[in-house]
Formats: sequence, C-alpha cells, structure tokens
Amino acid sequence: MHTYPKLDTIRQAAQRIAPYVHRTPVLTCAGLDHLLGARLYFKCENLQKVGAFKFRGACNAVFLLSDEEASRGVATHSSGNYAAALALAAQKRGIAAYIVMPNNAPAVKKAAVAGYGGQIIYCEPTLEARETTLAQVVERTGATFLHPYNDYRVIAGQGTAALELVEDVPELDSVMAPVGGGGLISGTALAVHGMAPHIAVIAGEPDGADDAYRSLQAGHIIPSVNPRTIADGLLTSLGSLTFPIIQDHVSQIVTVSEQAITTAMRHVWERMKLIIEPSAAVPVGVLLEKKVDLSGKRVGIILSGGNVDLERLPWTPG
Amino acid sequence: MHTYPKLDTIRQAAQRIAPYVHRTPVLTCAGLDHLLGARLYFKCENLQKVGAFKFRGACNAVFLLSDEEASRGVATHSSGNYAAALALAAQKRGIAAYIVMPNNAPAVKKAAVAGYGGQIIYCEPTLEARETTLAQVVERTGATFLHPYNDYRVIAGQGTAALELVEDVPELDSVMAPVGGGGLISGTALAVHGMAPHIAVIAGEPDGADDAYRSLQAGHIIPSVNPRTIADGLLTSLGSLTFPIIQDHVSQIVTVSEQAITTAMRHVWERMKLIIEPSAAVPVGVLLEKKVDLSGKRVGIILSGGNVDLERLPWTPG
Repeated sequence: MHTYPKLDTIRQAAQRIAPYVHRTPVLTCAGLDHLLGARLYFKCENLQKVGAFKFRGACNAVFLLSDEEASRGVATHSSGNYAAALALAAQKRGIAAYIVMPNNAPAVKKAAVAGYGGQIIYCEPTLEARETTLAQVVERTGATFLHPYNDYRVIAGQGTAALELVEDVPELDSVMAPVGGGGLISGTALAVHGMAPHIAVIAGEPDGADDAYRSLQAGHIIPSVNPRTIADGLLTSLGSLTFPIIQDHVSQIVTVSEQAITTAMRHVWERMKLIIEPSAAVPVGVLLEKKVDLSGKRVGIILSGGNVDLERLPWTPG
Repeated sequence: MHTYPKLDTIRQAAQRIAPYVHRTPVLTCAGLDHLLGARLYFKCENLQKVGAFKFRGACNAVFLLSDEEASRGVATHSSGNYAAALALAAQKRGIAAYIVMPNNAPAVKKAAVAGYGGQIIYCEPTLEARETTLAQVVERTGATFLHPYNDYRVIAGQGTAALELVEDVPELDSVMAPVGGGGLISGTALAVHGMAPHIAVIAGEPDGADDAYRSLQAGHIIPSVNPRTIADGLLTSLGSLTFPIIQDHVSQIVTVSEQAITTAMRHVWERMKLIIEPSAAVPVGVLLEKKVDLSGKRVGIILSGGNVDLERLPWTPG
C-alpha cells in the first residue's frame, strides 16, 4: 500500500497556502473550443505568483516546517520557476532561502530569485556540481532541502490547482497537465481521483523528452537523457514518489511534436491574450495534434506557467 | 439637464449582455503594486470576447434593437476592435453585420470580422469614403448604424465593466481607464458615479493624441488632428454624447509619453503574463510617470484590450 497524500491532505494544503497564493481564474475561449472540438476550461497558473504553479508546492512545504526547522532556512538547486517559487515562499515565512544556481543561468532568472530575497550560490553548470554545492550549503546552514517535486509536501501543494479547478467546474470529463518531474501531474491526479474518480487525468509530454511516457510503458523509471524540447520546464526525470502516483492515477501520457507545442502556444497568446510558456502549451498541443479523442468532452487544462523571454519568442526571427 | 444613462440603465445593460459576455476577472500583482506605489486592481477586458471591452457596448446596442430593426441588420465603419465586436454581437443575435473597412486594413482585422460572420464592404482609406460608403450600405440594406462610441446604448454597455469592477472591489479610491472617443471612460464614469460617487475617475491619454485633455481644458470638443501614438485605439475625437459626461464626472485627464506607454505595456506582459495592447497600457503609464499622486491608494484600472500583432512588438527589432 502506498502512503500517498490523500485528498484531505491536499485540502489542508489549500487552506495552508490560501493567504499567500492567488486563486487563479478558470477561463474559457469559444475560438479554441471550436478549433479543438472540445469544451475547454483553462486553469490559469501562468497568472499564479512567480508566474507558475510551482509557488503552490513551495509554499505548502515551507509552511509545513516546524519553527525550529524554518529558522535555519530552506535550500534547493534550480535554475527555473521553482527557484523563484521557493525564494518567495521563504520570504513569505520570513526565513532564508539558499538557491544553488548554475553560473550560466539566464540573468532574468537570477534577478527573479534575488528580487524575492533568495540567496544565490553559484556553481558550475553540471548536475554533480549542483548536488555537491547544495550539500555544502545544507551542511553549513542547517537549511532544509526541499526537492522541486519528489516530496509529498510539494506534490500536495501542486494538487491544489486541480482542487480549485474541479471545485469551479465539477462536471469535467478529463483534466490535462504537462509532465516533467511529475510534481504537477501527480498532485493533479491525487486531487482529481479523490474528488471525482470518473474524471480521466491525461498528461502531455514533448516527443523530445518522452521519458515519462517510456517509463509508464516500461513499468520503471527511465531517466531523461539529453532531452530536446522548447518546453524547458519538462526536461527532468520522474521521481521515486511521483512515478507510482502516475502509474496508479494517470490514464495516459500522450506525446506531442515541437511544432504543435509552438503552434498551441501561439493560439493561446492570440486568442486568449494569455502569456504561457512552452511547457504550458503541451496539453493544448496534444489536442491540436488530435493524439487523443476528446471531441465534445469537457476538458480542464492546467496552464502551468507563463515565464518566457519576450525578446526570444519562437515565432520571431533572432 | 442631461439625459445620460443612469446607473439602472447600466445595470439593465449588464443583465442584457450577461449571456454573451465574459465576466472578466479582476487580477492583482504585488510586483506592480510595489513598483507603482499603489494597490492596483486590474479589470481584464483584454480577456473579454474579441479581446476588448468593445464587445460589451456592441452587444448591448444590438440586443436593444426591436425585432423589426434587427431583421435588417446593423452597420458601422471601423478598422479596429469595434468592427469585430459588432460582427460578433450581430452573430449572437443571428442578424447581419455590414462592416465598412478601409481597403488597407490589416489582414488580421479583416479575418477577425469575417470569422465572426461580418460582411465586409471595402472603401478608400479616407474618412469621407468611409462615411459615403456606410451611407450607401445603410440605404441599400436598411441596417441600423451603430456608432462605436457616440451612442448611449454603447456607452451603457461599456459601463458594465466598471460596474463589475466596483461590485468586486467596493473599497476603491479611484478608477482609471484610457480615453479615445470616450465611450469607455464615459460609461465608466456613469457607473462609478452611480455606485460610489466618492471614487475618482481618472482618464489616461497619450501625449501624442491629447485632444480629450485639451477639450476638457477648453470647455468644448477639440477634434483629434494627426494624432501620433502607438496606442492605436485612442486616435479618435470625443463625441457629442461622451464629452458632457466626461466634463461632469471625470476628475481629470492625464497625458503620458510614448516611452511610458511601451514600458508600462511590457511591465504588464512580464509581471502579470497578460497580453495587453498599447491603449490598455496608457493608465499604467500614467502611474509609471507619476503624473498623478495615488500613492497608497486603491486604484482600479480597466485593461481595455489585448489585440496586438505578435510579430511586431514594440520591444523587438523589425
């Protein structure tokens, strides 16, 4: 028997983080419904604080720490949305956040972490250097390491987005989200399964980073090696905690081409006036490529984030 | 005494159009609050159908027509958001929309109107040709001409955005919106004055199209001649119906530089993940330039629209 977070745990997470997170809107778009042949309900986590669902999980984990643990701060290594999310969550609790980042991380990412009061520790851009540096930071400070996704506290926090979505739109037939390390999709699957087990949970994954798809086929975790995709939030491998939840409660993982991801992203920008990052466009791309038949169904889609470089858009030259 | 639309008229408009329009969300952004020194509540009409508040007024006017009037359709001349708004409103009622457009209108605008079932009649790109062509269309079809802003039915419809905003956030100190022809700001002023007369209504206008500012100073309408601004929704002159409302109920009109409009637009894109068009950024630009002191105040801002060409952004070369 697994000891997953239960629906109650996710409900408690929602209460815990409510003072700090946005209850993001669920938006609809007749034009996209028509184009994609389904009734779509978009849960806009791109409008979440720090521009991504990651803030939910970081917040839940940070506020679950004992005062004694919290007093020594939190630490992680990340160059993406989770780095900013953990920094802001720590700031909300008034504790230190130590963020190990590769020294070649984009300036905008460093600025975001620093802007939320995170203390950045630079390292060489290798996984080994990141892990070594993180271990040193934890040893020196006594900070609690909070993994970006392989942590039930984080998973329960990520599940609160789907909790709100199903509260707002109970009559859904399925819920879609992207899969990278699996924090979002596993939290989503637990929330949806607990609230309405008849709603199918479907994960979208880039063709060029299809380790989760292959892992589900194989029955064991296949690491992500040299992933190639514009969806830079989905490069990581599944975790030991996220994988079993996906095995139990995700109906299917569907992969999608780079072209469909970019086209889907542009459709959402143009028709919904929402800035989403490539990773968030992956489930929309799945519908665009008609890799799964949801025609006429009511489909909830979690738009996972909106952090993009406005000067390097995939449809402009340069 | 004027016979403006009363608050009741706006409430009735809200009920009338409710089945067709989005109740758009009011969003907040701690980062922009910090940057601009006020507590900001953004009413997201960029997320409205057709991507602009214009759909509210068009919808109200179209559904106020008698069945007999409606059977002959509606007509207007416009190359902007109102053209698409009227086409969609007519489609919702199942009647014809005749849209006179200059033959050099952008392809994307033509496609939007056609996509909503509007019948496009092309003319030379002069005001005279537009008016002559429109007169011919009205004579031929018996369609009802619906002006984009100088019409109380349209003004009342535009006022429903502020109605919802003040319903959602009653404790506002002021409400800001851009001014072009004055449809949005006059509807806003009537709604806010009717609901909470202590809330100040402030209009933002580009330095390069400051005819409303000068009209208010002069006490009579000064036409907009050769306006030069990136805010292409704000090029028109005030109308005989919108101007007196502005005189009576708008606290002030504040002008803003092109640089501030572009910077404000980018801030909203980057920090809120919302696509807004330059016209919608004008009130944010006013705060950025600190042309009016609203420090510490609760300020509602109507983000008027989000229709932009994603391949021609003001911060990318080309």
